[in-house]
Amino acid sequence: MATSTAASYKALVFDQTGEPLDVLQLKDMPPAPAELKEGEVELKFLQSSINPSDVNTVQGKYPISPKLPGAVPGHEGVAEVVRTGPKVDRLSPGDWVVPMAPSQGTWRSGGVFAAAGWHPVPKDIGLVAASTLIINPPSALAMLEIFHPLQPGDTVAQNGATSAVGEAVIQIAKARGIRTINVIRDRPDMEATVARLKGLGADLVTTEENLKDDLAASGLPAPMLGLNCVGGSAASAVSRILKDGGTLVTYGGMSMQQVTAPTAAMIFKDISFRGFWLSGRWAAAQGPAGRAASLDAIVQLYREGKLVPPQVQAFPLTSWKAAFEALAQPHRGKKVVLDCTA
Amino acid sequence: MATSTAASYKALVFDQTGEPLDVLQLKDMPPAPAELKEGEVELKFLQSSINPSDVNTVQGKYPISPKLPGAVPGHEGVAEVVRTGPKVDRLSPGDWVVPMAPSQGTWRSGGVFAAAGWHPVPKDIGLVAASTLIINPPSALAMLEIFHPLQPGDTVAQNGATSAVGEAVIQIAKARGIRTINVIRDRPDMEATVARLKGLGADLVTTEENLKDDLAASGLPAPMLGLNCVGGSAASAVSRILKDGGTLVTYGGMSMQQVTAPTAAMIFKDISFRGFWLSGRWAAAQGPAGRAASLDAIVQLYREGKLVPPQVQAFPLTSWKAAFEALAQPHRGKKVVLDCTA
Repeated sequence: MATSTAASYKALVFDQTGEPLDVLQLKDMPPAPAELKEGEVELKFLQSSINPSDVNTVQGKYPISPKLPGAVPGHEGVAEVVRTGPKVDRLSPGDWVVPMAPSQGTWRSGGVFAAAGWHPVPKDIGLVAASTLIINPPSALAMLEIFHPLQPGDTVAQNGATSAVGEAVIQIAKARGIRTINVIRDRPDMEATVARLKGLGADLVTTEENLKDDLAASGLPAPMLGLNCVGGSAASAVSRILKDGGTLVTYGGMSMQQVTAPTAAMIFKDISFRGFWLSGRWAAAQGPAGRAASLDAIVQLYREGKLVPPQVQAFPLTSWKAAFEALAQPHRGKKVVLDCTA
Repeated sequence: MATSTAASYKALVFDQTGEPLDVLQLKDMPPAPAELKEGEVELKFLQSSINPSDVNTVQGKYPISPKLPGAVPGHEGVAEVVRTGPKVDRLSPGDWVVPMAPSQGTWRSGGVFAAAGWHPVPKDIGLVAASTLIINPPSALAMLEIFHPLQPGDTVAQNGATSAVGEAVIQIAKARGIRTINVIRDRPDMEATVARLKGLGADLVTTEENLKDDLAASGLPAPMLGLNCVGGSAASAVSRILKDGGTLVTYGGMSMQQVTAPTAAMIFKDISFRGFWLSGRWAAAQGPAGRAASLDAIVQLYREGKLVPPQVQAFPLTSWKAAFEALAQPHRGKKVVLDCTA
């Protein structure tokens, strides 16, 4: 236990849903109490990420919502423990922690929280890995595990392979000997993108149009598991190469086009079309211990050099508007994060 | 053992795929041998049904196909045992039998088969129940069992509720205390159709357009299981009323329109879109003993008066062309069967 080191903290707050630039305000929060209660920790935030689900939360388009008014958004980030209240054995001042569950409000410089909601991570994985740890890599890990038991040599196919989850899928699959069939949009820097994904461990990188031919030429076996974050024809392309009994798992819909589930594929090829949401049934099924184990598995991959942190562009919390202006630029290629110490 | 009672049998035969009226021919088959081999039975067919999958088989559009040339179509029917070869203990002359597996060729007056491929049924269920036993009722039974564990009081929703499977679903669900939400097309004889389905045990009968309001007004709980044999908007209507974690199971595509699997429903409501095919993974998973048990369960429902046989229109095998001409009439409402004794 120690006394608070900060007179007060700042937080991005919204009182009603809307576009982030319209409804967010950076506000001074009430000072942390002199004495923490049982099970509480005071956290100083280091870096917090901005994910699509955060923007949707502020817009009121996400199923999990913080209580209005005075809501602080931010599902993901890394904080340092400043002091601990009575009966907090698991955490010590100076520890880095990440959220165990979404919607705790990470877009702030600090605050007081229930210790049970936070999980320690070692500092040697670095600030970027830690501040982007709890959503994309565990989503990739879970999708590779829960739908089909994949063995080394098996394949997984995905569209949107340059997305943060997509790149995590490539790396985690590679670490397990699972081979990846990656579909990306045709783009001006196609060669460089293919080279980058292959550098991460991708076995095949192709476009929707060339998928079938390139897969045949590659000699890779057809996958049981397909991952879709695009929808429309990009989803159909992946579903069409699945082995009988396979599953197309949708975790995003970047094209805003729905997925078609062809009747004959469902009936005669036994293809299933399912969804994945890290905060949905999966979270309920794995429970806190399972959640902690999956975060530790991601940390381990970082420590072994088998996961590379995403590229980020950081903005001081006090310059938060510039962060959301940057987000609005198309084809950024870098994840936007908030430096909560500035 | 006994000698053959028929000098020879006739069968509908096709040598190449195409429209049934173009490619089928009624032919005399070689006479049954004087001595049957071990495990063989000679069967005299009584009545065989014509299902959409039979027509698709003749057209070459079905995944299971008999060997050409000289193929005899017909997946379903009932036959009487004429005589048994050595080591056939399970069947006796005079027994009625139905196929254990599809594609044995039931559109014939008789022939010699492996006894293991046939399952005895009691005669008191009647010719119509027996000749339509192995496809639609077991499909309804399996779909009610394998996707979600339904309890008495739970609901199941389905479109195409006047189809043969749909009517079996209503009756089997009723026998188990499971309540049915049935979607049918608007039609001139709407009131009579609603009354008929309610007579079979339907709890709610409505149209795609009124489904949501009528379900709310009924006080019935939302279903975990939806059954779809239509596709398009009729599939979407059923998928939209499913409870979180529910499954839309497609077993047909009568509208020829594909199923849309909405991204948000898959991700945030954990709705799955799957297919069912009686001869697919399900058949492999249940094996012959499971298959026999499910046929016996259907027989039991008939004996208890909990299943009513479908309405049929019978044509003599020798007048088979009239049967296919009748099939081409829209909105028949009766299943077409072949009287194989005439």
